[in-house]
Amino acid sequence: MSRPNSRDRALRERAAAVIPGGMYGHQSVGLLPDDYPQFFARAEGAHLWDVDGNRYLDFMCAYGPNLFGYANPEIDAAYVRQLGLGDTLTGPTELMVRLAEEMVALVTHADWAIFCKNGTDATSMALSTARQHTRRKTIIRAKGAYHGAATWCVNRPAGTVPSDQAHQIFCDYNDVASLEAAAALAGDDLAAIFAAPFKHDAFIDQADPDLAYARKAREICDRTGALLIVDEVRAGLRLSRDLSWSRIGVQPDLSTWGKCLANGHPISMMLGADKAKKAASQIYVTGSFWFQAAPMAAALETLRLVRDTDYLERLQTLGDRLADGLRERASAAGFGFRVSGPVQMPLFLFEDDPDLRKGFCWSSEMLNRGVYVHPWHNMFMCAAMTEGDIDAALNAAEAAFAVLKQQGPSLEPVAKMSFLTASHR
Amino acid sequence: MSRPNSRDRALRERAAAVIPGGMYGHQSVGLLPDDYPQFFARAEGAHLWDVDGNRYLDFMCAYGPNLFGYANPEIDAAYVRQLGLGDTLTGPTELMVRLAEEMVALVTHADWAIFCKNGTDATSMALSTARQHTRRKTIIRAKGAYHGAATWCVNRPAGTVPSDQAHQIFCDYNDVASLEAAAALAGDDLAAIFAAPFKHDAFIDQADPDLAYARKAREICDRTGALLIVDEVRAGLRLSRDLSWSRIGVQPDLSTWGKCLANGHPISMMLGADKAKKAASQIYVTGSFWFQAAPMAAALETLRLVRDTDYLERLQTLGDRLADGLRERASAAGFGFRVSGPVQMPLFLFEDDPDLRKGFCWSSEMLNRGVYVHPWHNMFMCAAMTEGDIDAALNAAEAAFAVLKQQGPSLEPVAKMSFLTASHR
Repeated sequence: MSRPNSRDRALRERAAAVIPGGMYGHQSVGLLPDDYPQFFARAEGAHLWDVDGNRYLDFMCAYGPNLFGYANPEIDAAYVRQLGLGDTLTGPTELMVRLAEEMVALVTHADWAIFCKNGTDATSMALSTARQHTRRKTIIRAKGAYHGAATWCVNRPAGTVPSDQAHQIFCDYNDVASLEAAAALAGDDLAAIFAAPFKHDAFIDQADPDLAYARKAREICDRTGALLIVDEVRAGLRLSRDLSWSRIGVQPDLSTWGKCLANGHPISMMLGADKAKKAASQIYVTGSFWFQAAPMAAALETLRLVRDTDYLERLQTLGDRLADGLRERASAAGFGFRVSGPVQMPLFLFEDDPDLRKGFCWSSEMLNRGVYVHPWHNMFMCAAMTEGDIDAALNAAEAAFAVLKQQGPSLEPVAKMSFLTASHR
Repeated sequence: MSRPNSRDRALRERAAAVIPGGMYGHQSVGLLPDDYPQFFARAEGAHLWDVDGNRYLDFMCAYGPNLFGYANPEIDAAYVRQLGLGDTLTGPTELMVRLAEEMVALVTHADWAIFCKNGTDATSMALSTARQHTRRKTIIRAKGAYHGAATWCVNRPAGTVPSDQAHQIFCDYNDVASLEAAAALAGDDLAAIFAAPFKHDAFIDQADPDLAYARKAREICDRTGALLIVDEVRAGLRLSRDLSWSRIGVQPDLSTWGKCLANGHPISMMLGADKAKKAASQIYVTGSFWFQAAPMAAALETLRLVRDTDYLERLQTLGDRLADGLRERASAAGFGFRVSGPVQMPLFLFEDDPDLRKGFCWSSEMLNRGVYVHPWHNMFMCAAMTEGDIDAALNAAEAAFAVLKQQGPSLEPVAKMSFLTASHR
C-alpha cells in the first residue's frame, strides 16, 4: 500500500532550505518511520489530513492539546468571539480573573494561578518560585523525565553549559530509596522536588505513580520546607478533573499545566498553594502574549466542557476498549506487545524490539490504514473519538500485526534508532 | 476630572485573591500612576476601552504587538480562516515553510527561521545557538538592556541563582571602549555579543545605535568567530522593512523577533545566517504551540501589509508630528521635556524629575483626557492612528502641561518610584 506523498516531499525540500534541520522540536518526524508525513493540511474532531489529502485517525492529538476534538465548535467560537472584542491588549481582561478563579475552584491544591504560553514557561517559573520561597538552590528531579526545553531541563546538552543544570540532583522515578538518597544529598539546600504525575518518558514503558513514592516526596518537602511540584503539563485534564495526583491523595505546593487547557489554543499556567504566593509575586516572569484574552475565553469554555460533560469517563472507556482490543489482537497474532500507562495516554512497545524495527513496521502499517500512532512516545485520546473509531483502529491493528508477522523475520535494522541500543537499553 | 473605575477596582480585588501580587509581569500597573486601569474590555484600531467603558487612544499598542490596529480585519480574518482548517496539529502546515521563506526574502541577513512563542524563547535559543556554534560559553550584553524574562537574562534576581547568569560580561551600550574591554575579558571564550537595535531601556532616555559601536560589535565577532545577535523583538517591523540595523549597514548572524510579527497573534522567531544553521539544528528547542498554523497565517497577512502598504512611512510621519508637537507644547508651557528614541517608539521624560512626579501627574492628566501614555517605558505607534488622533493627543498634552504647571509646586513625591532615586540615578 502506498499513499500519495508528493506534496509532503516537496515541502520537506523547501523546508530544508529555510528551517534548520528541515524541522525541529517534538513535531519533527526525524525519528519516525520514513513514510510519516511532516506536513498537515487540516483537522476536524479526531481526524487530521496531511498535505497530500490522506486522512488519519490521530492518536497523537497534537501531542496533547486536542482534548475535545480538533476545531471544536464551542471552544473555537469562544475564541473567535473574544478575538473580535480584544485579545492582545495593553492589559489583561476580566477573563484572566475568571479563569484563575475557575482553576482554583477546580484544582484542590490551588489557591492562585499565573498564566503563560509554553509548558516550559510554567515549569521554569515553578523552579524560580521554589528557589525564591526557600532561598535555596537544589532541586530533585527524576532521570529521563521531561520538564521542558529550557536549558535548565532540556535532555540534550547541545548549546547548554554545565552551569545551566547546576544544583540539580537526579533520582529514579517511583524509587523511594533513590528519592531519599537524593534528599540526603541535598541536605539543607533543598528547594523543590519535581515530579511527573506518572512516568511518561519516551522509549520505555510508562508507569503509574507509586503511592509510597508520592507520599515520600510530600513528606520530604514537609520536613525540609521544600516545595513539591507536580508537572501536569502533559497529563492535565486527561486523567482527572483535578490534579491527577488527587487520585492518590497527594497534594503538591505547585503544579504546572498547559497543552489541552484551551484545547489547542496557546495557554499554560502554574497553580500554587497560598504558602508559595508571596514568592510567586516576587519573581519577574512575563511574555508578550501571556495576557491574551482569546485563549482564556477558550480555556473557560474548555473548563465548562470538563465540568459539564462525561468526557473523562468516555476517554477511560475508549482507552480501555483500545488497550484491551490491542492486547487481544497482539496476543492472537503471537506478539509480545505492551500497552503501558493510563489508557487515556497509552504507549505501545513490542517485546524484544531494541531498535524498534517491529514498532516502526507496525506503526507504518497502521498509518497506511489511516491510523496515526507513535512508535515510542505516549499517545493521547480525545473526546471526539467514537467506539467506531476505536474499532476501526483495532481492525487496522489486526491487519498490521498480520503484515508484521509476515515481514518480521526479514525486517531491516532501523539505523536512525540505533542510539537506543547503544545507550538507552 | 474623574473617570468611572468601580469595575476595575472590583476586579483588582478579585485578582488579588487568585493571582500573586494581583497581577504580574509587564502588564501589571503596579508601577504606573494609581488611576491607570488594570483591566480592559475591548479594542479596535488605535483605541482601547477599559472595563469601566473609558476609551483611550493607546500609545502602548499592547507593549508592541499592535502594529496595524487592534482587531485588524484582514489579519484577523486570516487567523480565523486558518483556525477553521487547522491550528495546533500533530505537525506543522505548509504555512510554516511559506513564512520562513518570506522572512528570508524580507530580512537581508536571514537565510533561515525558527518559530516560537515568546520573545524570550527567541533570545534564549539565540544564546544556545551561539554557544553550540562556537563551543564557547561567554556572552557580552549591555547593562540594563532587556532581552527577556528567563533566568539567564532577567533583570530582577528573585528566584534566580548566580549560576543562571554565569559566563556573561556586561558593557555599556554605544560605548566602543567598554565593548572592547568586555571582548578582551572574554578572551578566547566569546560565544556571542547581544545588541538591542537601539537603546530602549526603561526609566532613561532612549538612544539610537552608534555606528562605531555597531561596527565594532561586528568586527569583534568577525575576528573571534563569535556570533552577533540583534534582539529585534521590541523594534522589529516598526523601524524598517528589514532588520532595523540594515539602516546603518551592519548585519548580524542571528536576530530575534516577536511582538508585532502577527499583529498580536502569538508568534516569535529567530532568524539566522547560513553559518549558524547547523548549530541551530543541533539544539533542542520546542513548545506545545510553536507549530500553530493560525498565527502563521496572521503573520503572512501582516507581512503582506508590511510589503504592500505605506505603514512605515505613515508611522514616521505620525511619529514626527507627535514628537514635534509635544516638544513645542512643552516648551511653550516652560517644561524641559525630552522625547527620545525613534519617533515610532518614543519615550517621554521630564527634566528634573527623579521620582517621576511630573511624569506621573502629566500622564494621569493625559489618561483623563483619553490618551494612554506611559511615564517611563517606550511607547509604540500603530498604523491605525490618524493625524486627527495625533492632534487630539497634542490637545490633551497642552491641557495636561497646563495642569502640571499649576500643580507642579505642590506635587507629592511618588513613593513607589523612590527606588529610582535610590539606585538608578
